[in-house]
Amino acid sequence: MTPVRTAEILAVGSELLTPHRIDSNSLYLTAQLNDIGIDVRSKTVVGDDVRALADQFHQSLGRVDLVVTTGGLGPTSDDVTREGIAEALGLPLVEDEALVMAIRTRFERRGLTMPEANRRQAAVPAGARILANPNGTAPGLWINAGDRVVVLLPGPPREMQPMFEREVRPALMARTTGRRVWRRVIKIAGRSESHVEEIAQPIYGPLASSDVPIETTILASPGVIELHLSARGEDAAAIGAALDRGVTALASSLAASVVSVDGRSIEETIGQLLLSHHSRVAVAESCTGGLVMGRLTDVAGSSAWFVGGVVAYANEVKTGTLGVAPSLIATHGAVSEPVGAAMAEGVRRVLGAEFGLAITGIAGPTGGSPEKPVGTVVIALAHEKGTVTRTLRLGGDRPMVRQHSVVAVLELLRQTLVAPSS
Amino acid sequence: MTPVRTAEILAVGSELLTPHRIDSNSLYLTAQLNDIGIDVRSKTVVGDDVRALADQFHQSLGRVDLVVTTGGLGPTSDDVTREGIAEALGLPLVEDEALVMAIRTRFERRGLTMPEANRRQAAVPAGARILANPNGTAPGLWINAGDRVVVLLPGPPREMQPMFEREVRPALMARTTGRRVWRRVIKIAGRSESHVEEIAQPIYGPLASSDVPIETTILASPGVIELHLSARGEDAAAIGAALDRGVTALASSLAASVVSVDGRSIEETIGQLLLSHHSRVAVAESCTGGLVMGRLTDVAGSSAWFVGGVVAYANEVKTGTLGVAPSLIATHGAVSEPVGAAMAEGVRRVLGAEFGLAITGIAGPTGGSPEKPVGTVVIALAHEKGTVTRTLRLGGDRPMVRQHSVVAVLELLRQTLVAPSS
Repeated sequence: MTPVRTAEILAVGSELLTPHRIDSNSLYLTAQLNDIGIDVRSKTVVGDDVRALADQFHQSLGRVDLVVTTGGLGPTSDDVTREGIAEALGLPLVEDEALVMAIRTRFERRGLTMPEANRRQAAVPAGARILANPNGTAPGLWINAGDRVVVLLPGPPREMQPMFEREVRPALMARTTGRRVWRRVIKIAGRSESHVEEIAQPIYGPLASSDVPIETTILASPGVIELHLSARGEDAAAIGAALDRGVTALASSLAASVVSVDGRSIEETIGQLLLSHHSRVAVAESCTGGLVMGRLTDVAGSSAWFVGGVVAYANEVKTGTLGVAPSLIATHGAVSEPVGAAMAEGVRRVLGAEFGLAITGIAGPTGGSPEKPVGTVVIALAHEKGTVTRTLRLGGDRPMVRQHSVVAVLELLRQTLVAPSS
Repeated sequence: MTPVRTAEILAVGSELLTPHRIDSNSLYLTAQLNDIGIDVRSKTVVGDDVRALADQFHQSLGRVDLVVTTGGLGPTSDDVTREGIAEALGLPLVEDEALVMAIRTRFERRGLTMPEANRRQAAVPAGARILANPNGTAPGLWINAGDRVVVLLPGPPREMQPMFEREVRPALMARTTGRRVWRRVIKIAGRSESHVEEIAQPIYGPLASSDVPIETTILASPGVIELHLSARGEDAAAIGAALDRGVTALASSLAASVVSVDGRSIEETIGQLLLSHHSRVAVAESCTGGLVMGRLTDVAGSSAWFVGGVVAYANEVKTGTLGVAPSLIATHGAVSEPVGAAMAEGVRRVLGAEFGLAITGIAGPTGGSPEKPVGTVVIALAHEKGTVTRTLRLGGDRPMVRQHSVVAVLELLRQTLVAPSS
């Protein structure tokens, strides 16, 4: 059999051509296909239009070894994927009796009679192999079209993903060359994308043309930069070793800015560090309004190292609940290092934690002044050895300022926890 | 000139064919094009491959009146959009002297010399009209290909969007039929998607075949359902009136569950209601760890009606800072209506707000018991007239339980604020 090396993905559904929905299935499928060594060459969204689908599918099949479609397998007349593919392949649609029975049984198990409309879902292109759908009524289909492979998957991710993993992936692996893609991810905080690139490029540049060529991609989100390293081939041991060498070289050049080389987020790293320090953290937030604590409590089991905290939006909460001296606010303003320090110390003391974190700032769009423009944010960390504060000048809109502030204060805690003295 | 009615969108860039990045530009472009009456028939992502791009573009141009590309206009050899389109249209690439000057000036203004690589960006298909890019070096291009229109836009949204709005939209409007798409959005909280559909379908069903046909789409996110109504045509007054009738009929059938018919979020609605009540709110959160407050403070100007709050993750914060009686926790457990009520009353009293909100629950994955399984969440609202509590049994994973809890407690406050008695 000809090996499968290249693929195109076709998402079917008029709702995916509105301004509101995006085809996110293709991200999952791309990761899965790359993982078994299949390159994705293009991806397309078409509406519920049998002619447009047949046309696009026909062209895709002329270009690649594998075409995967998602969506359009439901029971209504809008669901045109079966017809479109059958038409493009010149295959008749035939009703599969076993499939009618399976769909009928699924309804009867829930005490319902199968609507006649669902019979459409049992009409399959002649010769197609049926892929079971334990999570819905729409069966998937596998069609061998000469040397090429066509796979039709349902649209809902909770139906599509298990079907891919159980039925499609093993069958495709039998048709691949054994070549696979391996990946590593380095997460970096507190540096800009261009700064990371400047440091990392001299290292990852040569990796691209080494014996085991390694591709590097930089992904940026507010405050966190990710370096993705990937290599493809058949020799798992050699590729793994080459990737590990690349990760080590990059991680040591970026030193203390490296959050993790195993996919962990800043907050997961913090949780593990606090556990190993037998310490807990409490948080006082003003302009970020709870986002820092929202991130910390995303981590399952965070109750072991997160005590709680205070959102001190109004000044009377800073002075009342956190015990910040009103004179500090009067003298320096609510957004100042003395007030940030007093908030961190206050929440640490009031809530009884080893570490206290605080953020106070001006997220905008209003509230700025020439001296303290929008984007001025003070972060602070209090522990038994003293209190550290920093003033940030952040760009961007309100959500951007808030997100950057959250990462900055988390990173201040992480840096303190990894420092040899802490 | 032939009017422009249909479009395809082509996103160019190998990074968009990885598992990590998605083409979100197409959502913006679809909204813009629909708005001026142009239907988007398909959208495709291709890599930095001049042959694949030329091939896909050629097919698109055979199907629709307008092809819009994004990306691939940079200065490096990976940026192949100009070549691909020129090749597919059979046009030579010619260097535009004015454009070289403009790019050179842009560099010189920043004290830099234009790299020779950037000269590529001045090579344009013969006859193309140049679209100025005030936010970057990559110019856009408008090409008339017979009756068809081809528009090449840069990939970064902050360059692409202003270019579309200033240069492309007005030029396209001169080529449309005057037909436009009008939209309305109804936001609904506290009902399931199937429940909304059951109530709304008998109303919006007939709207689809009325004199002014109205299309309705249901979009679901945790806790909030949106009904999008849209109609297309030339008669703004008639269509506006028909949409308003549809919105009124749907909103009255869904009654108190309707959050807004003008796009406002629950938290924006709450802010305006609190302002009109001259009241402020304070929040106590356990399992949601600050997410409620994070949502409230997303709203610019929220300091006028949000005091602050306490994340009481550990029980000693509930008893200490919020003054919940330890005996309540001992008798009923931390996740119980008496404790929820005491948290809401405590945060209202301690922070001095008219309304106190509280959430305490088991978000999982661990911490459940047969009596109180994962997903058991108590929400509470305290005000001067008394305290309301509710126990929810939520399904889904930890993030889902947290998101649903946030919406539920916000909706409890909104309902209280709109009730005639409050």
